[in-house]
Amino acid sequence: MKIQEIQGGITAAKGFKAASAAAGIKYQGRNDMAMILSDVPCTAAGTFTSNIVKAAPVLWDRKLVQDGGTVRAVVVNTGIANAGCGPEGMAVCEDTAAYAAEVLGITKEEVLIGSTGVIGPVIDMNKLKNGIRLLVPALSDSREAAFEASKAIMTTDTVNKECAVSIELPSSDGTGTVTVTLGGMSKGSGMIHPNMCTMLGYIATDAAVEKGLLQKALSAVVPDTFNMITVDGDTSTNDTLLVLSNGLAENAPITEEDESFELFKKALTYVCKTLAIKMAADGEGASKLIEVCVKNADTKENARTLARSVAGSSLVKAMIFGKDANCGRILCALGYAGPGFDPAVIEIDIVGESGKVNFYTDGKIQPFDEELALAILSEKKIHIDCDMAEGTFEATAWGCDLTYDYVSINADYRS
Amino acid sequence: MKIQEIQGGITAAKGFKAASAAAGIKYQGRNDMAMILSDVPCTAAGTFTSNIVKAAPVLWDRKLVQDGGTVRAVVVNTGIANAGCGPEGMAVCEDTAAYAAEVLGITKEEVLIGSTGVIGPVIDMNKLKNGIRLLVPALSDSREAAFEASKAIMTTDTVNKECAVSIELPSSDGTGTVTVTLGGMSKGSGMIHPNMCTMLGYIATDAAVEKGLLQKALSAVVPDTFNMITVDGDTSTNDTLLVLSNGLAENAPITEEDESFELFKKALTYVCKTLAIKMAADGEGASKLIEVCVKNADTKENARTLARSVAGSSLVKAMIFGKDANCGRILCALGYAGPGFDPAVIEIDIVGESGKVNFYTDGKIQPFDEELALAILSEKKIHIDCDMAEGTFEATAWGCDLTYDYVSINADYRS
Repeated sequence: MKIQEIQGGITAAKGFKAASAAAGIKYQGRNDMAMILSDVPCTAAGTFTSNIVKAAPVLWDRKLVQDGGTVRAVVVNTGIANAGCGPEGMAVCEDTAAYAAEVLGITKEEVLIGSTGVIGPVIDMNKLKNGIRLLVPALSDSREAAFEASKAIMTTDTVNKECAVSIELPSSDGTGTVTVTLGGMSKGSGMIHPNMCTMLGYIATDAAVEKGLLQKALSAVVPDTFNMITVDGDTSTNDTLLVLSNGLAENAPITEEDESFELFKKALTYVCKTLAIKMAADGEGASKLIEVCVKNADTKENARTLARSVAGSSLVKAMIFGKDANCGRILCALGYAGPGFDPAVIEIDIVGESGKVNFYTDGKIQPFDEELALAILSEKKIHIDCDMAEGTFEATAWGCDLTYDYVSINADYRS
Repeated sequence: MKIQEIQGGITAAKGFKAASAAAGIKYQGRNDMAMILSDVPCTAAGTFTSNIVKAAPVLWDRKLVQDGGTVRAVVVNTGIANAGCGPEGMAVCEDTAAYAAEVLGITKEEVLIGSTGVIGPVIDMNKLKNGIRLLVPALSDSREAAFEASKAIMTTDTVNKECAVSIELPSSDGTGTVTVTLGGMSKGSGMIHPNMCTMLGYIATDAAVEKGLLQKALSAVVPDTFNMITVDGDTSTNDTLLVLSNGLAENAPITEEDESFELFKKALTYVCKTLAIKMAADGEGASKLIEVCVKNADTKENARTLARSVAGSSLVKAMIFGKDANCGRILCALGYAGPGFDPAVIEIDIVGESGKVNFYTDGKIQPFDEELALAILSEKKIHIDCDMAEGTFEATAWGCDLTYDYVSINADYRS
């Protein structure tokens, strides 16, 4: 039952290729399109934005995933979100899928689409087609192709996000075990509270997993991973997370919730959590990662809500940017989160490599070592522990500090 | 049924005095305490923070208001919030009220308390007592005293906030009408989403109003005024809004929901709305006021929720700071607010003195005049109109842009 982190990204699993290209959709002088292709048909599962206003590619992908057919490819563009475009937006998706299908020799119902960028403009179909013509011959299962694809889907991201793991599962011929690999890439900063530049995430695995169970695993994993990161409280029109599984690992197909399913789910959790934390740490303008662990809450959902409230508080985020241990703001953010609790019994600590500062216990803010607090707040990752002393449930949320650069990036995003 | 805005603040109504003093509680070289005193006992009504963690003065005031006795005075300090201090915090309130009562010759149950500032530290009782000794002899019903009191309660506010109005109500002797005055002052930036520096608001009126109706009027007015402003989504531990009425106008006491009650409520709305908008415009670091009007929503509550979502969106706020008409963000903020609606029928406009830009209608972002949009976004007040085309309910929310200064102020608030 061991999960092994390995080098690699979206092409780490057997039979997956990737490519990237510069189509000039909005950005100049960089790659702005990526493609993922599986050698054989894949089972697909997905989770999508909860925003009432859904971008065309979200509607397109959701339909394909729900219709239950197999898929082969994903085409992603950055620069323009293809949201708020009315029926024209859906036509762009259909034309893109049809054109990619034609060049790849598959059907348009096998082509998923992802878009991220400015809301409003209609994407120039000629640029998309030109991009597809560049992408197809560049498809490769190399490490380099995966790395470049993860860079091509970036918008305001400053680093690319990849993760790959392998597990051992019983082989389909019953003679032993086989290595199953999951590789993923993502961009942006959130799922419940994503940055407007949108969260897109793609995970490719060679596991053989029955479609219902693939969706069940993904839906179980998302609430404690992608849904626990927050950058600015704005939920995008485009958020999309897709998992494709092509079965080429030749494991005994996962068809029930057995040990293999549990191990697969753990591996999927590992990939999702790693990508999610990388997104939180790279939130727009971020200089620090904030990790908030709420322990001993009365319900799992309350633990999540409390943790997200602290990680998402503008005042906590600004305080951490300023290395100013104005920790009453953490207490305050717990207080307005919604769940009831007894302020007289909770405990709040800030933990770093330099040590630990307990600043709230016995119903009051405690005197603390300012030098130690400054040392902890000067680290790249700040861990906040909140013990609610009322139950057994725990949740962790991830966020980032609020900096001048966040304002700068978002005050002038279109230009 | 006319409401007349008049010059003045907390001492505008008959029989109210104010004073301010420098007690050195945290700030140096400025006044940091204020006192309000009524010549005669007052009926009091109040609304308080919804935060689970309530500062000691909130608990103190809420108890006095709920117990139903009359009150005479309010003592306010800035610099330290008296929150997160455990039982010591309540002892500070009780000692402050007792000391002020002794000096003023009233009872401690007639003294309301307000505090705003850093969470955690216990306020030095000697400084509070010293401040009270300075405040009492300085009490005056002058315009100047009201102005100075409204400045003394400021924290990160850049301008003081005052408003006063007068109305004519039937006189108690039945021979005609008398002038009834409402005067108010406030500080900070919010009630549902207040800035951590806390919203404190005080309104003094010489109207004679039965206590239950005074509370009813206040509770009816707050949801569309103070509760519709947002600066950063953080709800403080200290938010307090109090109305004191001393009856010295000699109007026929308001004891039922008649015409006089309705006019009084309108006057109270005027004062609360004016103070609320002044707070939104002076949100920490703000350079512009954002007014979001949601029309034709299916319910009043949905109209409020949608308007607040747009006014509170970090991305909308940053876009307005940057004068960048990236208006898809407004559509996006409506979409994640919660209430359902049909994106195909809504309409969104941006309105300023320079003109109006329709940027979303017929289910898509429309081409718009970039120069006109820039001209509107360069104004000090930006009005956003969202027509939901599904009902008859309307609500307006106020907020401010997100600027470098917001980050700067909050990254280093304690020092």
